Amino acid sequence: MQSIHYFSQIIEKGLGDLTFPAKPSNLYDPLRYFLDLGGKRMRPMLTLMSADAFNIDCKNALPSALAIELFHNFSLIHDDIMDEAPIRRGKDTVHSKWNQNIAILSGDVLLVKAYQELAKQNSSIVAELLTVFNKTAVEVCEGQQMDMDFESRNDVTIAEYIEMIRLKTSVLLGCALEMGAIVAETSLENKELIYEFGQHIGIAFQIQDDILDLYADPEKFGKQVGGDVISNKKTLLFLKAFEIASDFQKEELTILLEEKDLEFKVIAVRHLFDGMGIKEKCKEIMQIHYSIAKEALHKINISTDKKKPLFELAAYLMDREI
Amino acid sequence: MQSIHYFSQIIEKGLGDLTFPAKPSNLYDPLRYFLDLGGKRMRPMLTLMSADAFNIDCKNALPSALAIELFHNFSLIHDDIMDEAPIRRGKDTVHSKWNQNIAILSGDVLLVKAYQELAKQNSSIVAELLTVFNKTAVEVCEGQQMDMDFESRNDVTIAEYIEMIRLKTSVLLGCALEMGAIVAETSLENKELIYEFGQHIGIAFQIQDDILDLYADPEKFGKQVGGDVISNKKTLLFLKAFEIASDFQKEELTILLEEKDLEFKVIAVRHLFDGMGIKEKCKEIMQIHYSIAKEALHKINISTDKKKPLFELAAYLMDREI
Repeated sequence: MQSIHYFSQIIEKGLGDLTFPAKPSNLYDPLRYFLDLGGKRMRPMLTLMSADAFNIDCKNALPSALAIELFHNFSLIHDDIMDEAPIRRGKDTVHSKWNQNIAILSGDVLLVKAYQELAKQNSSIVAELLTVFNKTAVEVCEGQQMDMDFESRNDVTIAEYIEMIRLKTSVLLGCALEMGAIVAETSLENKELIYEFGQHIGIAFQIQDDILDLYADPEKFGKQVGGDVISNKKTLLFLKAFEIASDFQKEELTILLEEKDLEFKVIAVRHLFDGMGIKEKCKEIMQIHYSIAKEALHKINISTDKKKPLFELAAYLMDREI
Repeated sequence: MQSIHYFSQIIEKGLGDLTFPAKPSNLYDPLRYFLDLGGKRMRPMLTLMSADAFNIDCKNALPSALAIELFHNFSLIHDDIMDEAPIRRGKDTVHSKWNQNIAILSGDVLLVKAYQELAKQNSSIVAELLTVFNKTAVEVCEGQQMDMDFESRNDVTIAEYIEMIRLKTSVLLGCALEMGAIVAETSLENKELIYEFGQHIGIAFQIQDDILDLYADPEKFGKQVGGDVISNKKTLLFLKAFEIASDFQKEELTILLEEKDLEFKVIAVRHLFDGMGIKEKCKEIMQIHYSIAKEALHKINISTDKKKPLFELAAYLMDREI
């Protein structure tokens, strides 16, 4: 098993080796800029780890890993337009730094570039990779649309919310892992199990994200704690609170949605949530998905030794503070 | 050789058979709406004609034909946002009927759907199809960016303009034809020649578009004659005029750019162009590309009989009034 550092180096080198034409500069400058903003590179890491777990040189899966990372960045560029987000990773988003049309078009070309990376894999497996990649890409779009639809709805259920984060976030982790497995030409069952592992780790990861947004240590957290509360985002915490709240608590929460003093709003909502045990209840749901993920990983037909890094990564993701 | 009507029926049935999930409706309703707006379906027609010319049942190339048509529609949905166009084919554009975010995202998913169609071809040729499709998709984005860049530039050369329309429009026609040839598994040389044919027919077609925009019969033309003049678009006519204009004519043209009486503007610009023989000069450039296209078609190693429909289509496109 290779170290995280080893995988990370391969990914950064792979991304660095991607060359974009000089012209039209308004199309390609944003891509280099956005990719250089960095990020955890968690998705391509999963592809390489999966390939390694299934006993091949992980470098063979690099085009797939890059395809996943480029796709992820494409979706961020377009999501930032839709969310009117000015900042990403501490820097201007593409539509802020250039303009919206440039952000649309450079996002488009980045999606195509993802497919170009994918086409670099051995032609005998391209069709199989393309199938899982396409299915996932469609689902990510569906998840993003659901997320946008939720903004104007007041009847979102927890089941719908979990389905939304599954589509918007988790399937891409499953896909990243499955693509490593496809390149390694492992069994169909193994491919399905590693996808399942990724999908449920993804759901648990996103729930953890919701929890951290309100409960992170402000000293360690990269962004404003309570951002979701301030923007009245329908996170799992919010939906769970509304589901179990008494009439009085519901009224309190509804009033707080309109609160103008944002610092007070965050503290008051957290206090209300604490009284209802929301954090613990969300952690329980997170644990369910973490367990399903671990169960899938247990069932994969490779040596325990090979699974260890994936178990460790999962534990790290569940335990993180940022 | 099958009739145009036969190909057309296969395409319309293929498009009709595409099913989109019911939900999220804000993602999928726009796709059905936009595809139902119709259009010439020229690109998928080329794919089927090419497959037929290379002696296979053209239905085998239907997924590729649909991929091309879906890609084309994706690019129109996003172009309409960028151009702030309210109307397409006499109906509201997606961003007008829904909103911009929905237009971005449904465009995105349509691009992925194009790749899903492509993945339906026999897995042995998917990698080859993917390669030409990707290359073309990147070029179309480059062409669109160049087109946007031209709006704020006053030093666009005719060579740059031709390169822009080659990328934005023509390579997709070449790609459509080449994909039919790939499905038919013809020789590499034949694939290259049919691509070349499509590319130059595309350039000639776009020049014809520029000419028609100002010189079409208003009774037959679907849209306002002189639209490009009104919006000061840097068409080939405009660039040619500026290239050969005397200082006095240049001044006249520059003043007309600011003219507020739009009906007068169109008549005056046309009068100025007539005095300079602009239409004829543009037709000459068009003829050059038409000749290169025909030359490529002549060289293709199939019976003359098989080439006839492609020659006829090319002649029709050059001779059209709308």
